[in-house]
Amino acid sequence: VQVAEAASERGRAVFLLGLQGIADPAIARFPHAWIKLGEGRRPRKLLAEHGCRELCIIGNLTRPSLGSLSFDWDSLRFAGRLARLFVGGDNRLLSGVARILENEYGLKIVGAQEVAPEILAAAGTFGRHAPAQRDIADIRTGVAVLRALGPFDIGQAVVVADQYVLGVEAAEGTDGLLDRIAELRRIGRVRTAPGVGVLVKVPKPGQDRRLDLPAIGPRTVEMAARAGLAGIAVAAHATVVASPVALVAAADAAKLFVAGVAEDNLPADAPGTHASGARA
Amino acid sequence: VQVAEAASERGRAVFLLGLQGIADPAIARFPHAWIKLGEGRRPRKLLAEHGCRELCIIGNLTRPSLGSLSFDWDSLRFAGRLARLFVGGDNRLLSGVARILENEYGLKIVGAQEVAPEILAAAGTFGRHAPAQRDIADIRTGVAVLRALGPFDIGQAVVVADQYVLGVEAAEGTDGLLDRIAELRRIGRVRTAPGVGVLVKVPKPGQDRRLDLPAIGPRTVEMAARAGLAGIAVAAHATVVASPVALVAAADAAKLFVAGVAEDNLPADAPGTHASGARA
Repeated sequence: VQVAEAASERGRAVFLLGLQGIADPAIARFPHAWIKLGEGRRPRKLLAEHGCRELCIIGNLTRPSLGSLSFDWDSLRFAGRLARLFVGGDNRLLSGVARILENEYGLKIVGAQEVAPEILAAAGTFGRHAPAQRDIADIRTGVAVLRALGPFDIGQAVVVADQYVLGVEAAEGTDGLLDRIAELRRIGRVRTAPGVGVLVKVPKPGQDRRLDLPAIGPRTVEMAARAGLAGIAVAAHATVVASPVALVAAADAAKLFVAGVAEDNLPADAPGTHASGARA
Repeated sequence: VQVAEAASERGRAVFLLGLQGIADPAIARFPHAWIKLGEGRRPRKLLAEHGCRELCIIGNLTRPSLGSLSFDWDSLRFAGRLARLFVGGDNRLLSGVARILENEYGLKIVGAQEVAPEILAAAGTFGRHAPAQRDIADIRTGVAVLRALGPFDIGQAVVVADQYVLGVEAAEGTDGLLDRIAELRRIGRVRTAPGVGVLVKVPKPGQDRRLDLPAIGPRTVEMAARAGLAGIAVAAHATVVASPVALVAAADAAKLFVAGVAEDNLPADAPGTHASGARA
């Protein structure tokens, strides 16, 4: 919805296709239709009727069970190719689906950052708090771990506290990772002092950035606070910031830093300060 | 206790020092004493009184809170060095403690595999079930992920299903990792068919193998079964197998494979079969 709003404000006509049971019902504020995962003919017709030439995919796909797919004669043609994609990480699945949509549906896939660059994290500190030297060391370690994991299409996030890697995200997602850190702290298995540790989230190397950029929102901040962390570091210009105003308010209230760190210059040694982090 | 039994059978005199609240009360079957984490003088005296020249450390240390340490004038001399070790992974903490014990206490640190080689996993399949081709591909991926993570002193285990990395172990430990996979499957976030996926567990590269070898036991098998996995792969000759008879029985009952894979030849393409996996 945020992407649709930004694209509209920039003068684009938008038409939203929501996956039933997955997409936010708020897409109803725009011209839209609901489709089922696996449908081929209806979305193709709907996109043609609305004159869509570009497609921006928001959100990620976990591997669906076969029974949940609503194949039709149109999409069945791709079933074999899709089945092969199901073996492998999220990354391959999503980029494979994108390739089919480009080649077979004649759509141009565009990234959210192209149609709505203002939704991306800027470089620098969002809100009132900035990372300390200790946090910067943790950010460096986190980035190094995520780069090492890059070839494997695993998660996009780690939690590092005092140079110690407390958690690595895989199928559980970032919320699951933060929940776990909070629980490990509660049961005394993680004993680093509260207010130490950073959630580091960056895109996978080689990831198609038109698809599935990492995202944070106010809930990420709240969960990071519950996990006792000092803050959150994301890749500048390559991370979606949902509800930036609420995110900055949550960070200030919880005394957490949220920082966009420039890639190839990670982390920025003297991050600038932005009143609202998500606006470039 | 298993190491003590094996070392005794091999004709060694053993004396056990148990960390209060951490070690198995069953150490009482051997000459033993209980010490507190942080004590220096008492364990030094006890070891001298019992003529100990070699020390075998079993189990791992998570970073203790300062308040839980019982420093005395003896151990306080090393407090500065210990504090520096607390910044960094488990691996550095444990090897740093070992170095202090070697240099300051004049003890020779020996690995469990030296005093009780029969506790280590042999190469090949334990019990009735063997990995299928699909499992072997998952084992290869798991080993590659763990090698990439090696420099960071993180976990020693991953779960891979159909080439997709479902989970990476860090501070939560192997039990925590398997619990999470079971839960992600229960809530439908992991959708690979039951009976697909492997727990892969290998020592960290560069790890001091006298300390903290990976370990599996019957409980690991039960938890892997609950997580819906096909089996468990460990590094042969570098993994402690606790209660091997019960472990093989649990694996057979749950129709799981447990395989020791030879390093630098990972995984063995045609693993041999051993009636009891832990006996070489």
